[in-house]
Amino acid sequence: MSTDLHTGFDEQQYPHINKGLDGIVAFSTTKSFIDGAIGELIYAGYSIDTLAENATFEEVCFLLWNDRLPNSEELAALQAELIKERNLPEVVLNYLTSTDKEAEPMAVLQSAVSMLADFDPTKGKFDSELFMSQAISITAKIPSIIASFDRYRHGKEVIAPLDSGSTAFNFLYMLNGEEPGTQAEKTMDLCLILHAEHGMNASTFTARTVCATMSDIYSSATAAIGALKGPLHGGANTAVMKTLLELEKEGKDADAVAFTKKKLANKEKIMGFGHRVYKTFDPRGRHLQKMAKALSEETGHEELYRWSMDMLNTMKSEKNIDPNVDFFSATVYYSIGIQPDLYTCIFTMSRISGWTGHFMEQAANNRLIRPRALYVGEKNLPWVSVDER
Amino acid sequence: MSTDLHTGFDEQQYPHINKGLDGIVAFSTTKSFIDGAIGELIYAGYSIDTLAENATFEEVCFLLWNDRLPNSEELAALQAELIKERNLPEVVLNYLTSTDKEAEPMAVLQSAVSMLADFDPTKGKFDSELFMSQAISITAKIPSIIASFDRYRHGKEVIAPLDSGSTAFNFLYMLNGEEPGTQAEKTMDLCLILHAEHGMNASTFTARTVCATMSDIYSSATAAIGALKGPLHGGANTAVMKTLLELEKEGKDADAVAFTKKKLANKEKIMGFGHRVYKTFDPRGRHLQKMAKALSEETGHEELYRWSMDMLNTMKSEKNIDPNVDFFSATVYYSIGIQPDLYTCIFTMSRISGWTGHFMEQAANNRLIRPRALYVGEKNLPWVSVDER
Repeated sequence: MSTDLHTGFDEQQYPHINKGLDGIVAFSTTKSFIDGAIGELIYAGYSIDTLAENATFEEVCFLLWNDRLPNSEELAALQAELIKERNLPEVVLNYLTSTDKEAEPMAVLQSAVSMLADFDPTKGKFDSELFMSQAISITAKIPSIIASFDRYRHGKEVIAPLDSGSTAFNFLYMLNGEEPGTQAEKTMDLCLILHAEHGMNASTFTARTVCATMSDIYSSATAAIGALKGPLHGGANTAVMKTLLELEKEGKDADAVAFTKKKLANKEKIMGFGHRVYKTFDPRGRHLQKMAKALSEETGHEELYRWSMDMLNTMKSEKNIDPNVDFFSATVYYSIGIQPDLYTCIFTMSRISGWTGHFMEQAANNRLIRPRALYVGEKNLPWVSVDER
Repeated sequence: MSTDLHTGFDEQQYPHINKGLDGIVAFSTTKSFIDGAIGELIYAGYSIDTLAENATFEEVCFLLWNDRLPNSEELAALQAELIKERNLPEVVLNYLTSTDKEAEPMAVLQSAVSMLADFDPTKGKFDSELFMSQAISITAKIPSIIASFDRYRHGKEVIAPLDSGSTAFNFLYMLNGEEPGTQAEKTMDLCLILHAEHGMNASTFTARTVCATMSDIYSSATAAIGALKGPLHGGANTAVMKTLLELEKEGKDADAVAFTKKKLANKEKIMGFGHRVYKTFDPRGRHLQKMAKALSEETGHEELYRWSMDMLNTMKSEKNIDPNVDFFSATVYYSIGIQPDLYTCIFTMSRISGWTGHFMEQAANNRLIRPRALYVGEKNLPWVSVDER
């Protein structure tokens, strides 16, 4: 029906444009399953609830890379390898401690992950026998990158990684300069588990698209970071926290219901709600909600949780939209003392396990990913010399 | 029919998997049109033949960013802006002159482009009013990055960019340390024109996927470089040259027909032939072929062109496959003295114009790109403690 006046493009004559590739099935995968209607999430056979209650992040990494859980020997070997790989090459550390302090942490993380390829003795060779050790190395180094840049930009001394402890424990230590308590470590670990993998989201899809050219795993992870960075993807939890901090300015008695209604009336987008796949409460959200509640009480920030619940209930009653994973993760990260502009970096620390799992899956059954675009411009225009334009 | 034994996955019960997104139309675009059956390529209204005969790379940049050719004032302004933006931030230059000399040039280019975001005063803000100046800045800096790293790794002094001259002229100057002749500049410029844009290839698609999360133009370009790096995409012209250098080892009288037939008999992949879209001679190939012929005569490397033609004719008669754009570009780059492992970087220098054009087009009519994956793994496995696995 609609015709583009400039080009004579008539939609009816042309094939359907699958904008956003909505509903197009592009791959088969054993990495995760999502039933958005009932709010179910499975990683390689195990429900997210089972993993949240029982697993560690390191077990989840093994699961996403091998499609099964490790035995105790395999788990110990993986932990040892992750610890061994935490140190950063000097050139990377130099960059992290000399770049603009106002640089966006996700932009810095992207550059640093890209640089890691230069110092991998395999130079990121595309070889299935090397993928696992490359994935371990990147997963081990991302927390060191985030913590090093964060300390540098705040004028604090950069801290060398520990040669023991979990990924969560070591990260909080490198970030804060002191060993975390059991509760903080457990919270961090659970956050890493909950964000590790989530079907064919934009960053995972980007990781697979880069892999499909037979480029290397570093390039794939670097590209995925670029996609996760966007506010329509991983950048959302930072935006959620900004909203909560807006409320904080109004004091502890701020009215989150009125605040939310006002935003809705002004047609402002409220971050942390709605999801392309989930049409109900995000199953990861339940675990984060529980944590957010406990932590906001523990840290004396009960108002954060109260505001969150008021926003959630208002969004449900006014718009019938449920919160997504970003909504409660903002409160959780804030409560364990992590600055809002690092949230997407923390997401990366976790999601690298899923990206690299998908990389290995794509590489094992590869085909170049190259959709089509419909040309709606003009054709064969005559050349006009520059002076006559 | 086929059932996956491990998972009980029966293909027949499930939706069609669009492997590689083959034939799926994902966007409408005014950037380029390809008719693979007749070998036609159009950039924003103008046939590649018209542009190859008349345009400069700078005009093509303007065309891909604005969907029209510039008038003389606009062209002068763009040239001035590109010249002004050639200098690299100190931190980027430090990285380029301190990283591993054996690092892959494309990996280094990816890191350096990513780092540029830190020093953009706009911090790569996602704002349509800033996209053009961000695109100009990246396009201007990529040649400086490539030349600086190449000189460093060869132990040569890094050369500051010129404050005049075309992109092609300045690049060859920064790379070789001396001003190029008219023919070399013209060849380089034509190569930049021919590689600038090519529909929904894997790197352009990656650039748009990253853009669609509302991430920034630096992240998008960085991700696209990761995709272009792969040997199934931009990495191919380096591979073509490796094949020609294999022949060179056999001496000037090497028999390229026998060489090609032997490779075919051994079922080795011969790079530089065949294309997902073109079913005939790639229209860019004709221009490159003409250049390759002229240059191989000029430089006394007639055998390179002879071998190329022998390979081409053998591939046509034995397999009925035509050469793609990578095939002759290898000979051309080699003839103007560029090392094979820089070819994909040169491709990037050019294609950045198309990527950033697509970024602006995607941003103007955006939707998150998120296809689906079909889960073929198990579900709801019970937890087994690590000691019992």
